[in-house]
Amino acid sequence: MGQGARRPGEFELIDRYFRPLATSPGAFGLGDDAALFRAAAGDDVLLKTDLVAAGVHFFPDDPPGSIAKKALRVNLSDIASKGGVPVGYLLSLALPADWTEAWVKAFAAGLKADQKTYGVTLFGGDTSRAAGGLTVSVAAIGRIPRGGMVHRSGAAPGDLLYVSGTIGDAALALAVRLGRINARAAGRGAISLLDRYLHPQPRMGLAAAIRRYASAAMDVSDGLVGDFGHICRQSKVSGVIEAAAVPLSPAARRLVRADPGLMTTVLTGGDDYEILAAIPPKNAAGFERAARAAGVPVTRIGQVRAGKGRPAVVDATGSPVPLEHVSYDHFG
Amino acid sequence: MGQGARRPGEFELIDRYFRPLATSPGAFGLGDDAALFRAAAGDDVLLKTDLVAAGVHFFPDDPPGSIAKKALRVNLSDIASKGGVPVGYLLSLALPADWTEAWVKAFAAGLKADQKTYGVTLFGGDTSRAAGGLTVSVAAIGRIPRGGMVHRSGAAPGDLLYVSGTIGDAALALAVRLGRINARAAGRGAISLLDRYLHPQPRMGLAAAIRRYASAAMDVSDGLVGDFGHICRQSKVSGVIEAAAVPLSPAARRLVRADPGLMTTVLTGGDDYEILAAIPPKNAAGFERAARAAGVPVTRIGQVRAGKGRPAVVDATGSPVPLEHVSYDHFG
Repeated sequence: MGQGARRPGEFELIDRYFRPLATSPGAFGLGDDAALFRAAAGDDVLLKTDLVAAGVHFFPDDPPGSIAKKALRVNLSDIASKGGVPVGYLLSLALPADWTEAWVKAFAAGLKADQKTYGVTLFGGDTSRAAGGLTVSVAAIGRIPRGGMVHRSGAAPGDLLYVSGTIGDAALALAVRLGRINARAAGRGAISLLDRYLHPQPRMGLAAAIRRYASAAMDVSDGLVGDFGHICRQSKVSGVIEAAAVPLSPAARRLVRADPGLMTTVLTGGDDYEILAAIPPKNAAGFERAARAAGVPVTRIGQVRAGKGRPAVVDATGSPVPLEHVSYDHFG
Repeated sequence: MGQGARRPGEFELIDRYFRPLATSPGAFGLGDDAALFRAAAGDDVLLKTDLVAAGVHFFPDDPPGSIAKKALRVNLSDIASKGGVPVGYLLSLALPADWTEAWVKAFAAGLKADQKTYGVTLFGGDTSRAAGGLTVSVAAIGRIPRGGMVHRSGAAPGDLLYVSGTIGDAALALAVRLGRINARAAGRGAISLLDRYLHPQPRMGLAAAIRRYASAAMDVSDGLVGDFGHICRQSKVSGVIEAAAVPLSPAARRLVRADPGLMTTVLTGGDDYEILAAIPPKNAAGFERAARAAGVPVTRIGQVRAGKGRPAVVDATGSPVPLEHVSYDHFG
């Protein structure tokens, strides 16, 4: 981040950059000790927290606005995957010793842009310096009609497995950035992959369709196969993913064609922030129609089956595809 | 923290140490992507986040259970100061590279003890490794009867200023730990001071009295004088604190007697987590009675006055006491 001139104090930082984000009346302009949220009659409150840390979820020199957006969006993605509508968020910002005002300004600008995009506002926060790298923790607040929350636990044998968007882009981008994939092989596609890594696109538009049609859903953050495993475990079922059906972006497809072994990265790498949903067959047509109307591409990639144990991944011939590991572990 | 044997993965950690803390039905045993909270009819939701970071709010080698308690309690203190009742919390834990399972186990045990003490449960969380030192961010969820929230902004000229407990202990403890005060001067009292630094005592018992009798309130975290300044600014008033009336613990009194200059540390050091409240004169007797019934000592230390600008601190003769700075700034 590099040292700058005189840096503002904590209260000045809040005044200049964060108070303008606190536009909800219940945030009291960040001038009180807590925020007040009133759920509408018939609504429940959804709560979710995810943190992102320098060197783990982003590179310390990534654009501050991108870091802000990623920190917020990974939480909004969870709200959407439950069928909820995001309302606001709390922000905890632990700044490294060499923070600059310019960095905080750009970080807040990223939040401001996303507040407009996603219809959320800042409800409160805390800013402190920290020993070590930047850590950003967001707690998202959503609303959902009573009884409308879609769980991981509702999948039943026979349900069809759908995923939104494309899978693997962010994990491939990370591999390129870490030099594990030749950037030349990625070609111009590397830029679109990098954008997926920096700027997850939470599928807010799909939330209503999930609420109406899905028996179970979650967002794909730890890897497609591992996350389907979470649904299976919570639902006490098993299932199958057809590797050939998993939707890939053109850039990802090019990389996998050059090195088929990268399909493991695609299927287990994580950081996708797409929605994985189990849809009862009788709901499939309605779900596809609703997704189309929402402008969110969805693809059928497998099925829920009776039984227990990890879901299988099969190739076009139905043979199991071996995977080295099934999910990204932050301590792995 | 020291390296240990083989360390569990993220999901194992959650299973072993955090899932047992998620006892509310709406937490779904941490087995879903978000928690569900339903406010009772007539209640609003209070939301607050505060983070604590190694080297800023605690020492990296402080007992893990104490770090956990501090991270939780600084948030509960805010809920209490608004007149609210805490319900649960979200936890974001960024672990340094050398974390051990024993450390996490002790950290979770600290949370478990406090959950029982304060009647809260874990609603969700995220655990990750981080570059640098430990950072713990808690987002607390509270409930409050509609219209019952006590703001910083309600103080009126003539209101009496009260504070709970004693002031300055934690700041003096920090000064002892940093070698700025001779530990010998603190004597055996150093232990009680240290306990105040490690284990803030959020004044949950005073919340109902605050809700009923206070015109404005907040918890003292950034320093008594600075925090009273926040109330004054938000309430568009000024005020006065009588330094001699500020309640000191026996250990703090001994230190200040030996070095009167330490009174600045007491008045501006922060980390007290006591409640500062403006009480209209007609409510004073009721407030004192309710506090006594709740077993929380409260002391009248000053008064709200008309005007604008920083509140004054006066000595026993009514002369202003000079203070070097008025509030702890996390970037100062």
